[in-house]
Amino acid sequence: MRNRTVGEYLLCRLKDAGMGHLFGVPGDYNLQFLDAVINSADIGWVGCANELNAAYAADGYARCRGAAALLTTFGVGELSALNGVAGSFAEYLPVVHIVGAPSRAAERDGLLLHHTLGDGDYQHFLRMSQEVTVAQAVLTPENAAGEIDRLLLTALREHRPVYLYLPTDVAVAEISPPDDPLPLATPCDPAVKVAFANAAEQLLASAKSVALLADFLADRAGQQPLLRQILTDTPMTFATLLMGKGVLPEQLAGFAGTYAGAASAGKTRQLIEQNDLLIAVGVLYTDTITAGFTQQTDPQKTIDIGLFSSRIGEQTFAQLPMAAALSALQPLLERYAPQWSAPLASPPPLNETPSDTLTQNTFWQAMQDFLQPGDIVLADQGTAAFGAAALRLPEGVTFITQPLWGSIGYTLPAAYGAQIACPDRRVVLLSGDGSAQLTIQELGSILRDDMKPVIFILNNGGYTVERAIHGEHQRYNDIAAWNWTQLPQAFSLNCPAQSWRVMQTVQLAEVMQVIRQSRRLSLVEVVLPPLDVPPLLQAVTAALNKRNSA
Amino acid sequence: MRNRTVGEYLLCRLKDAGMGHLFGVPGDYNLQFLDAVINSADIGWVGCANELNAAYAADGYARCRGAAALLTTFGVGELSALNGVAGSFAEYLPVVHIVGAPSRAAERDGLLLHHTLGDGDYQHFLRMSQEVTVAQAVLTPENAAGEIDRLLLTALREHRPVYLYLPTDVAVAEISPPDDPLPLATPCDPAVKVAFANAAEQLLASAKSVALLADFLADRAGQQPLLRQILTDTPMTFATLLMGKGVLPEQLAGFAGTYAGAASAGKTRQLIEQNDLLIAVGVLYTDTITAGFTQQTDPQKTIDIGLFSSRIGEQTFAQLPMAAALSALQPLLERYAPQWSAPLASPPPLNETPSDTLTQNTFWQAMQDFLQPGDIVLADQGTAAFGAAALRLPEGVTFITQPLWGSIGYTLPAAYGAQIACPDRRVVLLSGDGSAQLTIQELGSILRDDMKPVIFILNNGGYTVERAIHGEHQRYNDIAAWNWTQLPQAFSLNCPAQSWRVMQTVQLAEVMQVIRQSRRLSLVEVVLPPLDVPPLLQAVTAALNKRNSA
Repeated sequence: MRNRTVGEYLLCRLKDAGMGHLFGVPGDYNLQFLDAVINSADIGWVGCANELNAAYAADGYARCRGAAALLTTFGVGELSALNGVAGSFAEYLPVVHIVGAPSRAAERDGLLLHHTLGDGDYQHFLRMSQEVTVAQAVLTPENAAGEIDRLLLTALREHRPVYLYLPTDVAVAEISPPDDPLPLATPCDPAVKVAFANAAEQLLASAKSVALLADFLADRAGQQPLLRQILTDTPMTFATLLMGKGVLPEQLAGFAGTYAGAASAGKTRQLIEQNDLLIAVGVLYTDTITAGFTQQTDPQKTIDIGLFSSRIGEQTFAQLPMAAALSALQPLLERYAPQWSAPLASPPPLNETPSDTLTQNTFWQAMQDFLQPGDIVLADQGTAAFGAAALRLPEGVTFITQPLWGSIGYTLPAAYGAQIACPDRRVVLLSGDGSAQLTIQELGSILRDDMKPVIFILNNGGYTVERAIHGEHQRYNDIAAWNWTQLPQAFSLNCPAQSWRVMQTVQLAEVMQVIRQSRRLSLVEVVLPPLDVPPLLQAVTAALNKRNSA
Repeated sequence: MRNRTVGEYLLCRLKDAGMGHLFGVPGDYNLQFLDAVINSADIGWVGCANELNAAYAADGYARCRGAAALLTTFGVGELSALNGVAGSFAEYLPVVHIVGAPSRAAERDGLLLHHTLGDGDYQHFLRMSQEVTVAQAVLTPENAAGEIDRLLLTALREHRPVYLYLPTDVAVAEISPPDDPLPLATPCDPAVKVAFANAAEQLLASAKSVALLADFLADRAGQQPLLRQILTDTPMTFATLLMGKGVLPEQLAGFAGTYAGAASAGKTRQLIEQNDLLIAVGVLYTDTITAGFTQQTDPQKTIDIGLFSSRIGEQTFAQLPMAAALSALQPLLERYAPQWSAPLASPPPLNETPSDTLTQNTFWQAMQDFLQPGDIVLADQGTAAFGAAALRLPEGVTFITQPLWGSIGYTLPAAYGAQIACPDRRVVLLSGDGSAQLTIQELGSILRDDMKPVIFILNNGGYTVERAIHGEHQRYNDIAAWNWTQLPQAFSLNCPAQSWRVMQTVQLAEVMQVIRQSRRLSLVEVVLPPLDVPPLLQAVTAALNKRNSA
């Protein structure tokens, strides 16, 4: 034990939990803590242009590094970040939201401080955050060490955001916290594991065809390496849903494509649904990625492995972490794989309708060639994400999209966060024009930090994903027309970026060639027809529109 | 009674409540309602670049037109707007927040739709909004007519936001609502009015010197015309606080300046505090506008007139709207004015330290000359607002600032909203560079709609208001360096704007001369020293910093 301030202890624990950075925006209730951040050798400060963008950046960082921290100021700052934090909650990302708050003395006296609602109640915003975080704490010098640990452990265990209220005076108060490491562990009941293995074996023993379907929760639980091992040792047909795209190695034999229920391309649907046994790992069937819940999988023929519990038929196995379930399953798969008769699947090819003018089809063909092993690809909700669903990802590509929360504009700041997390990997951002307008100022931070992502702005003159759902020709789906290629110059003095506007397929190919050979921030405005949508999006939006009119 | 859809009825009531526009961003749960908006002859659609900006724009519109409406989509959209709605709550602006939500059938079945948290609970976001709105309603065809009226009347009566949850299927459901007008009335107890007048007269009868101090709530209650009448008929010493600046006619004799407690300039403090009687109208003493609660006014010598109740000494007069209290006071003031002995006040002059290089001093001197009668001036929290406090506003100027909620970045979208509300008035926006970065994309909407505000970006290389509070040389108070003058060209094809970067006092004067004679959007980047702050801000931040360390 040695004396430290609460702020210093918090930074130390963020490091213990695997973080190297803190995203946010300064405000006068968090400046005292920020002094400690600037002095920290372990946690780097990443100042963002606004708080929503900071929350998105933290979310993107968490997807690449396992966890993230976000700092805002009381009231104005934290509320601006809420949509981003809610996205991390919905899509299971552990983000520690630290809110710099007025001093305890001010709160005790109910002073009408700025950033309050003017009614002396300082807890309004904590109550709001309760809906989108799994734990909250109001720090005092007395409880700080315990509460910081409790919140961090809860965030890491449940893969979801927590809320940490840090008064200005508490941030600089000295405490004597314990030196113990963070006790990271997930409860697992060995008897349950045995029971699960027995039940799984019953199904496996009689299965002549087996497929594996994985989704985003497998990624959140860190099971990507084990799944790759399983698919390498016991080749089988496999797919992901769009939300979990990238969690399985799509270059391996057996990859059947991106599964989307009735909207799946080619034979993907039957390859996944028509088997004696489906192993579902971390799957959550939500509307947009299943074309409105059109998945037809038989619970009696499914081993459904969740984050904390699994299900086989009518049986539920609680207190069984995903890692334990998968490690129980692994030897069984090896034992029974020899009896599988179905041939290994291959993914459906991209739609190849050649066209001189750029279309969704020709764009995605070019993108398939452009991607490189190890890229981090972010695709915003809209034509970008649904078009990217058809790609076959090269080895080691991280794919980031947000189909459940579905907040447009998310990916640009998330790309910034991902690049902070992985400075040596190439970041490829795919965003619509309507989406990019919401959060464009973070391009300034990307340029300030001399980062070199490749940014494709799919310019179809507005909200094409909405046009596909409703109001095809309504002006509310149009947006302000921007000079996209001038933005890097506007957002940076001595701008190091290169940018292009392309309308022809051949132009795009030439530009991609230049980008491949350069190491500069590249922005490509890709002009696409306003009513051109990828086939998957067409199928999905038809389903959504039907439901909205129900 | 005639059949209309719920959406059509809602639009009709927005019009009855005095609105002509609806601000927002489309999303797939509000498109059905948007069809009705587009078809409406009465309510114009104002599509914004993101939801926070839309909320700010609505707030700015409400400050100019009395009320505003905001449309977002479920989850992602509404949460992004929350900071803006909270600002309207803190600063008493009636904003009707309409949230397009999933159909009732989807909610009943708890479907895992996009924009939900994936847990089947659709009421998370309504609960969050309860903290920052005074009434909420989940609309059905059966309750729609009653609930829409209830919410609008509550918003108008309490001058605060309300939350209206509008499922997609409800928006298009047909109903037969009553044709009655909206019953706008505020309860007033005549006996209380008489008692108030008697108590007021007791104080007035013996007062030899009287001053009037008004703040923002007088504006919200619509008492600007009556106050002007009072000050014209019975000239007396008067001032406003920064939050209510502009509510009193500063060109009239008796104007004592902007009152800020101990941080008041010149003689303003003693002119307001040292009288036999102070008439306080709509005053709320909050920290930043009083330099940390340094006001010294004697409750025993104050007639304190609030929105809904008044206080004289120990007596409270409830159910007494501000208008009733002022109308009771008016004849008494006329009766006793002849016995007042104190001379009429005049405001302190601007600090006049000449300098070739631009400084806060020389900038505000130039701004004093630049302002014209009838301007709408918006000053962002920071050096802009605190500098503008020293201005003497020309006749008919509307001044917009947000010192209680204090969300930086607020004014740029608010300027857009103000210009929508008052297309024929000149809008002058004063924003710091740090502030403008948060919400810059709304410049695209301003350009799209061919508006011609005059925008001054006070570029001091970061968050100077924070530097004044803490971390003078810390890099967390620096921001990305932008090419401010290129932004209009980047945010618009065929940009009609003119822009300049000025560093010299004489340059600024020349540019202002050009702007006076032109009718184009003008953006002026004003380069100022990073550590130069207006005197008022210096006094205020010293107080804030002391409190944060308490």
